Parts: sequence; C-alpha cells; structure tokens
Amino acid sequence: MGMDEKLAIAQGLDSLGVDVIEAGSAMTSEGERLAIKKIADSGFKAEICSYVRALTADIDTALACDVDSVHLVVPVSDLHIQIKLKADRESVVRMAVDVTEYAKDHGLIVELSGEDASRADQDFLAGLYTAGIEAGADRLAFCDTVGVLVPEVAADIFSRLSRLEAPISIHCHNDFGMATANTVAALRAGASQAHVTVNGIGERAGNASLEEVVMALESLYQIDTGIRCKDIYQLSRTVSQMTGLLVAPNKAIVGENAFTHEAGIHVHGLLADTKTYEPMQPENVGRKRRIVLGKHAGRASVELAMREFGLSVTSQQLNQIVTRVKELGDKGKRVSDVDLQSIADTVLSIQMEPKVKLEELTVVAGNTVTPTASVKILLAGNERLEAGVGVGPVDAAINAIRRAISGVADVRLDEYHVDAVTGGTNALVEVWVTMAMADRKITARGAGADIIMASVEAVINGINRLMRLEEEEIARCRKA
Amino acid sequence: MGMDEKLAIAQGLDSLGVDVIEAGSAMTSEGERLAIKKIADSGFKAEICSYVRALTADIDTALACDVDSVHLVVPVSDLHIQIKLKADRESVVRMAVDVTEYAKDHGLIVELSGEDASRADQDFLAGLYTAGIEAGADRLAFCDTVGVLVPEVAADIFSRLSRLEAPISIHCHNDFGMATANTVAALRAGASQAHVTVNGIGERAGNASLEEVVMALESLYQIDTGIRCKDIYQLSRTVSQMTGLLVAPNKAIVGENAFTHEAGIHVHGLLADTKTYEPMQPENVGRKRRIVLGKHAGRASVELAMREFGLSVTSQQLNQIVTRVKELGDKGKRVSDVDLQSIADTVLSIQMEPKVKLEELTVVAGNTVTPTASVKILLAGNERLEAGVGVGPVDAAINAIRRAISGVADVRLDEYHVDAVTGGTNALVEVWVTMAMADRKITARGAGADIIMASVEAVINGINRLMRLEEEEIARCRKA
Repeated sequence: MGMDEKLAIAQGLDSLGVDVIEAGSAMTSEGERLAIKKIADSGFKAEICSYVRALTADIDTALACDVDSVHLVVPVSDLHIQIKLKADRESVVRMAVDVTEYAKDHGLIVELSGEDASRADQDFLAGLYTAGIEAGADRLAFCDTVGVLVPEVAADIFSRLSRLEAPISIHCHNDFGMATANTVAALRAGASQAHVTVNGIGERAGNASLEEVVMALESLYQIDTGIRCKDIYQLSRTVSQMTGLLVAPNKAIVGENAFTHEAGIHVHGLLADTKTYEPMQPENVGRKRRIVLGKHAGRASVELAMREFGLSVTSQQLNQIVTRVKELGDKGKRVSDVDLQSIADTVLSIQMEPKVKLEELTVVAGNTVTPTASVKILLAGNERLEAGVGVGPVDAAINAIRRAISGVADVRLDEYHVDAVTGGTNALVEVWVTMAMADRKITARGAGADIIMASVEAVINGINRLMRLEEEEIARCRKA
Repeated sequence: MGMDEKLAIAQGLDSLGVDVIEAGSAMTSEGERLAIKKIADSGFKAEICSYVRALTADIDTALACDVDSVHLVVPVSDLHIQIKLKADRESVVRMAVDVTEYAKDHGLIVELSGEDASRADQDFLAGLYTAGIEAGADRLAFCDTVGVLVPEVAADIFSRLSRLEAPISIHCHNDFGMATANTVAALRAGASQAHVTVNGIGERAGNASLEEVVMALESLYQIDTGIRCKDIYQLSRTVSQMTGLLVAPNKAIVGENAFTHEAGIHVHGLLADTKTYEPMQPENVGRKRRIVLGKHAGRASVELAMREFGLSVTSQQLNQIVTRVKELGDKGKRVSDVDLQSIADTVLSIQMEPKVKLEELTVVAGNTVTPTASVKILLAGNERLEAGVGVGPVDAAINAIRRAISGVADVRLDEYHVDAVTGGTNALVEVWVTMAMADRKITARGAGADIIMASVEAVINGINRLMRLEEEEIARCRKA
C-alpha cells in the first residue's frame, strides 16, 4: 500500500472506533515512515502505534514518526532466542528492559510484546513481563506467532497472565483457522485488548480478523465492543481494494456470499423468519441479504423473483421455470436477471424480439494506435453506425455501443467485473456487469475466450433487459 | 458443478481417505441425481451419502441413486419446528422415527441429524436422538446450522451426547469464523465424525474446512486422521477451479500466501530454522515455501535472490538494491524477477540493451473477424514482421510475438494470470506470466488500462529476461 491507501484505511479504522492503530513498522522503508507520520499527525482519536524491535535505533525512528506508542517485540521462545537471535534468555530480558526504559524516557506508551509466546517457557515469559512492568511498560502482548494456540490453552494461559500488574493483549495468527476462537478465548479469560486485522490479512494465513472477533463478542457473548459494526463491510471493501487482497466469497461476515441464500428450503424458512438461517441481521454489519438462483432454487425463491419482474405465473408455469433454472444450475451457472427473464419468456411464450442487436463490431488496438471501435447496431429495426475510442479495446467497444444507442436508451455501466483469469491466453473469461437506466438496476453476464466479445455480450444483454423493463412499465401505466 | 466436476472431486476425496462422501441432495434436480448415482456406482472406498429431508419420497429418490447412506435432517430448534415447518416437537419426533424406519427397511445406513441443534432444547434433542436410535439409526449428527456455537459450549454438549448409544457427528458453519475450533472441540469431547468441506465452501460463510480441521488435529493434537495430507493442496485447487469459488490468499493451509514470507527479519529466521515462522512443513500439505520481495524485504532475502541470479554484489551495492526494492514495495508492488533484475542492473551499472523490442503492434478483433495481430519486433537489431490469429485479441497478439521470435528464442507461456478487474472498463489490469525456455522458468508482470498492451508488456519482459539468462549461462560456460 502507498501512503494514500494507508491513510484512508487508518481513517476508516478510526471512524470504526478502534482504540489503537498499528500504522506500520517505522524501520521498514522511507515510504512507510512518511505514511506513519502522516497518520500520526492526522488528529485521529485512536492511539497511533509503530511496530519496533528491541533496538534504540528503532525507537528513535518511531519517535521521528510522531507515534503515541510502540509495539515493542522481543522473541521469547528458546527457538527464536537461540536460533534466530543467537542470544540467551538473560540478554533478551536485558534488551527488553533497556529498550522499554529508553522508550519511556522518550515519552512513548510501551506495549511490551513476546514473539512466539505460545511456544515459550511460560515461567520465563511471566518473568520477562514482570521485569518489563518494573521498567515502565504500560501494556503487554502475547503473540501466537505461528498460529499454534488452541482455545482451551489460550484460556488457561490468560487466566494466569491477566493477574499481572499491566493489561495484556492477545495477538493471534490463523495458520490452523483458530485465530478468532483463540482471541475470543483469551479475552474471556482476562486479556484486555486484541490485535486484529480487517479481513484477517497479515503474514502467511493472516491474523485474527476484526469482523469475526467483534461480531462473535457482540452476537455470541453480548459484549459491547464499542465498534460501529454497521461500517464494517465498507471498511472491508476499502481494505480489499487498496491491498489487492481478495476476500473469499465464503469469508465470514464480509464475504460476498455471507448473507446469500440459494437453497429452496432455506429461502422458504427465511421468508417465515430470517433468524432461521441467519445468525445476525445483515444490516448490522452494513450488508444486505441476497437471494440467488441456481440448481438448488426452489419454488419459493423463483416465485419471489417472478413477482419482482411483475409477471403473474400459474402453478404449472412456475414448475416449468423452476425446472429450467435448475437445468442451468446443473451446468454450474449462477442465474443472472437476464437468464431468468429469458427462461420466463420461453415458458410464458412471450416472444420478445431484442430491441438492440449487434450486427458488426470491429476493434483496432495496439501500441501505436488509439484503441478504436466501430459498431453497427440494429435499434428497433433501424441501423445505427457509430465509433468510439477508449483507454483499451474493451473500453472503446463499450463506448461505441453506448453512443450508438444514446438518445434512445441512456444506460449507465455501474460496475464491470471480470473474474480472475488463470490458464493460457485462450482461457475462458467471465464478465458480469451491473447496469442502470434511470433508477432501475440489473445484472447481466457474458462469457467466452475473447474478452472484448464477452464484455459486449454482457452489455448488450443488459441494455435489452433495461429497455424491456421500461417498455413494460410504460404499458402498465397506460393500462392504469 | 456439473457431473464431471462432482465426480472428479469425489475421486479426490476418496483418494484423500475420507470415510464418507455426501455427494449431494438427490431431490435437488435431475442433474444432481445423475451425478450422485454416477459417484455411488464408481466403486469408491468411501461410503456415499445423500442429504435427505424426513420424507419417504426423499428416501426413494436417494435409493434410486444407489447411495449407501442418508444424512437424514430434521429441524430440532423450536424456531425451525414452529416457524419454518409449522409443526410441533412431537410430530418432528414421529417423522424422524418413521422415516428412519423406512430408510432402514430399505437397507440404507441412516445418520439422523438435528438441524439448528445448537439453538434447540438440549433435553428434547437427546430424546429425539434416543428415539432415532431405537428406530434403527446407525449414527447421529448435530448441526450448528447458523454457526452460533462456541468451543466451550461444543465441548460441554458433546461430553454429554457422546454417551448415547450411537456415534455422533459434528457439522459446523463458519458465520463467526469459529467452525474449525468448534469442530475440533466437539471431536475432543467425544464426537466420532466431523462434516467438513474442502476450502470451507458451503452456504453463506461456508462449513468447517477439511484442511484446517485435519491439520489442527494432526499438528496441534498429534491425532492421526488417516487423511493423505500431502494431497490436500491439489484437491483444494481442483475444488476452487471446478466451483469457481476463489480461495483467499490468506486462507489457512491452502491460500496462496499461507507459506509465503516477505518481511526481512522473518526470512532471516527462516534461513536459520524454518520452524521459527512455520507451524508445519509446507511439503506436508503438498506445498512449497515461497519468498517474495516487497517493502519489507531485508538484506537476507535480496542477497539470496542475487545469489540465485548468479550475481556477486558488494555490501554497498546490496544496500542500494534493497533500498530500491523497498521503494517499489512502497508503491504497493510485488517485485517480480524482471523488476529485481532491472534494479540489480541499474545498481551494478550493467547496461543491457533488451534483446527484443516492440516496434509496432496492431490488433483487429470483433464479431465478424478472426482476432488478428500484426507485430514488428526488433530482435537483436533486426526487424522481424509477423502476424498471428487467436481466439481473442490477447491470444492473437501473443501468438504473433511468439512467431516473430521463434527459432531464436523458443519460449513457452506456462501461466497467464489476470487479476480480477472490478470498476469500470477503464480500470487498471494487472497481468502476471510465468514463462519458460528449456528448463528455466521466470515470472514477469505488465500493467495498464489496456489488457492487450499489459499482456504484451509482461510477455516481452519475460522473453528479454529468459534470453539474457541464457546468454549469461553461455558466457559462464565459455569462461570455464
């Protein structure tokens, strides 16, 4: 992340209501230092912290960035002390004490942290913490650096460590998928703070995820965390976009599918009471419920969709539509609005000629030409010829098409999404678009080995659907 | 997923050594039934199971698919019984008993399962299980349908349920990120089986993930699960490709970054002993360790890379290279082999003219023409003019380039990857390629708003790097 990205995320974390923002490691690079300083100087309510090693040089670097506090990390397992640091336990305690004193002398809040604490001798660790408190450490932290902690051990350890004279934080990694449970177990056993990251990002398998820990505490233990939960999803999207780290569709709380329902019986239950298949209201974390159709689609969900389309269908017609949706689902397809409309049309024998038909498209691109597209379109039977340029061949093609239909159908392309392509340059590309005309919004899909044609297919499908919906609305108004 | 995909995944699960494969819900659709029957008839070692509701019609459908067993699900919480099913406790017990008897009469193994069991009256649930056992149920299952279980409650519940006269399974959902911890807690408290899915896929936030539960048991509790762990990663890739469900880079065990190390100090520790920053050997789950460079890159990792490039650098030169890598990292970039080579060149003042230079590229595509590209390339000072066709414009451009250099540099494009694009049709596209010449393999990158030019940039960078490596090797051989 560059400076602007880091600042935007810090802003998001501050608004969300976190107590401390670890803004980076000041010794990492010049860009990192500039970003930390910018964040520290932004007047956020949260305490701004830098990760530091037990070196006075690191403390000086952190001070130059104007941070409030340091997360001062010393290795505490014999493996880390002997193999990585090539030192011994006594010298580690000395380093920790010396650098803590140095940091306190320079006015910093110090959180003294044990790296690889879960694999350390726990008596040695407690001794080190005690020495650190005597040297002035304000807080302590326990790092499960390689994610080997389990909840019952976390509970046991923290029931003892929480008796020390300073508050202690839990810092968990997710190498075995246990980070959330371990963090919650530690907090319940007396930990005062938790180190978490949005979307669970971090080294390797990442850290305990903010959204999971917060919502588990709020929903499962009725603990008020002080976090503005409604802003969680927005921040998750920001972090994903700015880091380029994708969130899996099945990620808890913030994944695309976390509040998506497909199976027929589930939708049936949801219609009666959303609590049947939802452990929390999606709105509580800034999200919306989504019903998608596929091979598990049941009558209830298809009937709901038909009602939204303004179509009244007989029980027999509904059965036929459900069967065809399932057929499409059997081929592994999600069913877009356009797909469903086309199925309904076939079953209801509504012969709708598409308003817009692509006759010809030619695109020229390269390193010495401006990407340019010409398009011949049949719009309600009339030929329209247009051309457009763009930053690339897809952009040029879509611009030409939008021009060709302007005045008749002024559509917006609100979202353009291409799934990640992996394989060869001849791999299948799947394009989804969200398009809008006035205040009506729909989704459409295109696919193929040619990214230009897949994109054009999605857009033309979307245009036809939007024009048809408008026509139907006009017809309804005239009737009324 | 279609039939072939389901069969391939069932094959993978069987080889992995799972005891039971729930192949689908027979009542879902015709395609689902064909797939289940095909799997049931494939002679796998694993027991093949179908999900069924407490309806004799569902049992008949499952029987027609030749399955060995049914996962017979009845709602057990009052919410599900009263609101969804609009029934009462007594009638649910009657349904469960009747359908269990019917399934047993028809020779099926029956796993009687309580839906929403974690929100049910636990005394009622125990009574229902007991009635099921008397009716002939072979096994029981406890479904945490909306993911509200926590480990300490799971342990408490299963210490009681495991005293029943039939083995009991745990089935967890991951709505709060607790599914793995809950599953492990239940197993340790006496559950005999666990329902898990590869990559944790499933409704909403998904189910407990196979790889996390297996590796937590094996690595953290030294329990032999009988699973061939070395095949886990391969199966994870297969499932991701066949379902189209992306795995997050920070997913435990199977995510792209789960065994990737960036930070300088970490690489330092790893070089001494991989256990310092790895909780398990990547090879144990069929993976490899990966070191990537970015803003956290330290001297140790850059020095390692220089050694691999066959370059000897002074301490001062190394510092300069590290600084520039960090600068690139500050801009949020991963540093590819080509980037690093170009930095090293600058610092070492090796003025290398690229062997291949793109002079002209023109691509024509559209719906009525075969995507065609012409290319003019300077290859070691000589102009080469070529043309190529392809399934799309990118494919055509790359084919033309490969033709233009053939005979001189016969490169393979082993992998072509475009990150998912979201935004408008003018969004930035990032292309990564893995290319090879003979047995040498490298990565290169291209980026821009034009997908054709970004792809061409990546490929030409890669070609230059490969040609240069070959030249250097020839020079070394001559010297020797």
